[in-house]
Amino acid sequence: MEQRTAEILCIGTEILMGDIVNTNAAVIAKELAAAGINMYHQTVVGDNPQRLKDALDLAFSRSDIVVTTGGLGPTYDDLTKEVIAQWFGLPLEMHEASLRGVEEFFRARGITMTENNKKQAMLPKGCTVFYNAHGTAPGCAIEGKGKTAIMMPGPPQEMEPMLKNEVMPFLHKESGFRLVSRNLYFFGIGESALEDRLHQMMIESQNPTVAPYAKIGEVMLRVTARVTEEQDPAALLDPAVAKIQEAVGEYLYGEDVGDLQTALVWELKKRGLTIATAESCTGGYVAKRITDVPGASAALLCGLVTYTNEMKQKLLGVSAGTLAEHTAISAEVAAEMAAGARKASGADLAVAVTGNAGPEAADGREVGEVYVAVDSAWHREVLPLQLHRRPQDTREVVRYLAASHALHLALCTARMAPASDAE
Amino acid sequence: MEQRTAEILCIGTEILMGDIVNTNAAVIAKELAAAGINMYHQTVVGDNPQRLKDALDLAFSRSDIVVTTGGLGPTYDDLTKEVIAQWFGLPLEMHEASLRGVEEFFRARGITMTENNKKQAMLPKGCTVFYNAHGTAPGCAIEGKGKTAIMMPGPPQEMEPMLKNEVMPFLHKESGFRLVSRNLYFFGIGESALEDRLHQMMIESQNPTVAPYAKIGEVMLRVTARVTEEQDPAALLDPAVAKIQEAVGEYLYGEDVGDLQTALVWELKKRGLTIATAESCTGGYVAKRITDVPGASAALLCGLVTYTNEMKQKLLGVSAGTLAEHTAISAEVAAEMAAGARKASGADLAVAVTGNAGPEAADGREVGEVYVAVDSAWHREVLPLQLHRRPQDTREVVRYLAASHALHLALCTARMAPASDAE
Repeated sequence: MEQRTAEILCIGTEILMGDIVNTNAAVIAKELAAAGINMYHQTVVGDNPQRLKDALDLAFSRSDIVVTTGGLGPTYDDLTKEVIAQWFGLPLEMHEASLRGVEEFFRARGITMTENNKKQAMLPKGCTVFYNAHGTAPGCAIEGKGKTAIMMPGPPQEMEPMLKNEVMPFLHKESGFRLVSRNLYFFGIGESALEDRLHQMMIESQNPTVAPYAKIGEVMLRVTARVTEEQDPAALLDPAVAKIQEAVGEYLYGEDVGDLQTALVWELKKRGLTIATAESCTGGYVAKRITDVPGASAALLCGLVTYTNEMKQKLLGVSAGTLAEHTAISAEVAAEMAAGARKASGADLAVAVTGNAGPEAADGREVGEVYVAVDSAWHREVLPLQLHRRPQDTREVVRYLAASHALHLALCTARMAPASDAE
Repeated sequence: MEQRTAEILCIGTEILMGDIVNTNAAVIAKELAAAGINMYHQTVVGDNPQRLKDALDLAFSRSDIVVTTGGLGPTYDDLTKEVIAQWFGLPLEMHEASLRGVEEFFRARGITMTENNKKQAMLPKGCTVFYNAHGTAPGCAIEGKGKTAIMMPGPPQEMEPMLKNEVMPFLHKESGFRLVSRNLYFFGIGESALEDRLHQMMIESQNPTVAPYAKIGEVMLRVTARVTEEQDPAALLDPAVAKIQEAVGEYLYGEDVGDLQTALVWELKKRGLTIATAESCTGGYVAKRITDVPGASAALLCGLVTYTNEMKQKLLGVSAGTLAEHTAISAEVAAEMAAGARKASGADLAVAVTGNAGPEAADGREVGEVYVAVDSAWHREVLPLQLHRRPQDTREVVRYLAASHALHLALCTARMAPASDAE
């Protein structure tokens, strides 16, 4: 396969001045890297035609493909199409389908369209048009002089779907291949430990590629096969996934699930189970993450945030004796909180979190000392955890990790539920 | 004052490949913009000495100051200092104070220092050294050939304090001035509406400058005076802040408070008041944000997440009749939830949220229909809100805004508390 080189050129004074963090560059770079395209440069310039032209000259002097974001809007300083079309020696023409799209966008919202909005439907002659499902400015690609320019709008909620649904298929079609991925989600193993165990495989495997995507406390592995239209991707993907499962399967919590809370809510709904939460140091973070998932109302009955000992007793029935003997930050109290939340709500299972999230040691408990408990008719468990492992582990990180452990423990417990509990 | 031009050059293959979002560029750009330094370009290159050198040549051909991040670590591919020192014709030398700092960093953590870590204390001859309070690699500045190079480490938790505490004072000292700011926090007015009302002032004022920083549902205005060592910044700042208060004071919720939850927790603690929360659609987000604030345990007694009607009745005492007549998404239920949470907890005030956060209309309620209520001995109020105003307002945005309204209503209510309630 031929190796093409791309670079990313983001246009916008707001990025340049730091008013916006340039997430677009990272999102695009990930996709291009996964497609096996080389990248050596990213550039940001403001809404200035001369500097944009200079940046374009430089970019095409060293790369085959230039991907731009921004400067496609209706105002006088949106000049990306104008400058790039000129570079290719092409005029702009009214693109009727895009014009109708812009008009429809305003009509649907009951807003009168001003004349300058028509500018967004002026596109370089002969370009490939990318539909904008979330805004008015279409994207486009120009091919010529052995180079390819890809233009996308700046707002991430418009750019990201266009990249995924229009631009990447365009680039793959150009190359004669398509990419098919499986996403594997791991909890309880760090990125470097995972890479250690899969080292040879990740280095050696060209097709499929195996790429790790780490977030706090979790790793996602994307296994991507590059196949022709006729090829069956499963022939490449299945053996690779089997190998990964053999090496690190005990940490795998799901495939194509997105995150822990989504995996948990899906699992609970599939089995017809309900859940309740009891939280001290996480202060509602577990419940908040469960309810991030649309439709969580079918599974979550209630969440109880008991920040004081008195509330732990009153709302959850934690005994005064246990609190006095073990303090609120203990395995015993975590277990009683979970049992109390299950009893108060009538849920099938309940998870509880108590601990010291920091920023300072308190009552003789180090920052990061956390207990996570689960209670159900078929399984009870308490995990003692130390979640402050690096200097950069802030209160937010400790709380996030504690909530992740609670979600994971609930997920594992739901999976242990006897079949008779399923509807 | 002379106008200098700077550009930002971020070095790191992980940024280039999209594994890391380049937040550094935005953070640095904000600070440079606030210091009145012009910026026209940002660039990212990987850990490659030739491309770094080319990028440096280009950057210095058009700017006075180049600020870099990354490539200061101990490994063989960390080459920023080497390449930049060579550009200035300077050798690297062992900087003894930095070497002791690196050694101490390892000793404090009980880790044996490997030989390659000494490389981090090798600095360009005659440079200004920037202390790294959160890691091992010091930063530095080189001045020469009429240019200034500023090098900082890549990890944001190391870069950001160095930028604020070392680099910006260095740049101001170079210019003979210092910057003094006051940060004003607004809720309930959008950035564009705020700018409209302050338009003339924001355009005309050169000293102090007035810069808006928007986040979802909120705007922070930073009023910054540029003064010599001898000048009193209050002489410039006080009249400007008074003018702003006159124009938009009704939306101002605090000065130098950081965010709504911090303002609320401080206000409650100052007055010796306690709070409880009752949440439906926000699912714990209000309690989570309150407990983001270290020391929130002195104010928050409990949070009740009642996702089902049954739990609203059982835990909060919402009446079946009210639920049947008005449905769960109503001003009446919000008011009963707040009253119920106050009663269940014994807190001085309670806030409640109920609504439809989306993604779809349900039970005849549009996405974004939300009711926020507060209950206390001295004030009761229910706010009917429509929080889905733009296509890009996701479930997360609606939930965040609903939680913000609850925090703000609680803050306003706490401020109304009769003085006798204060300790």
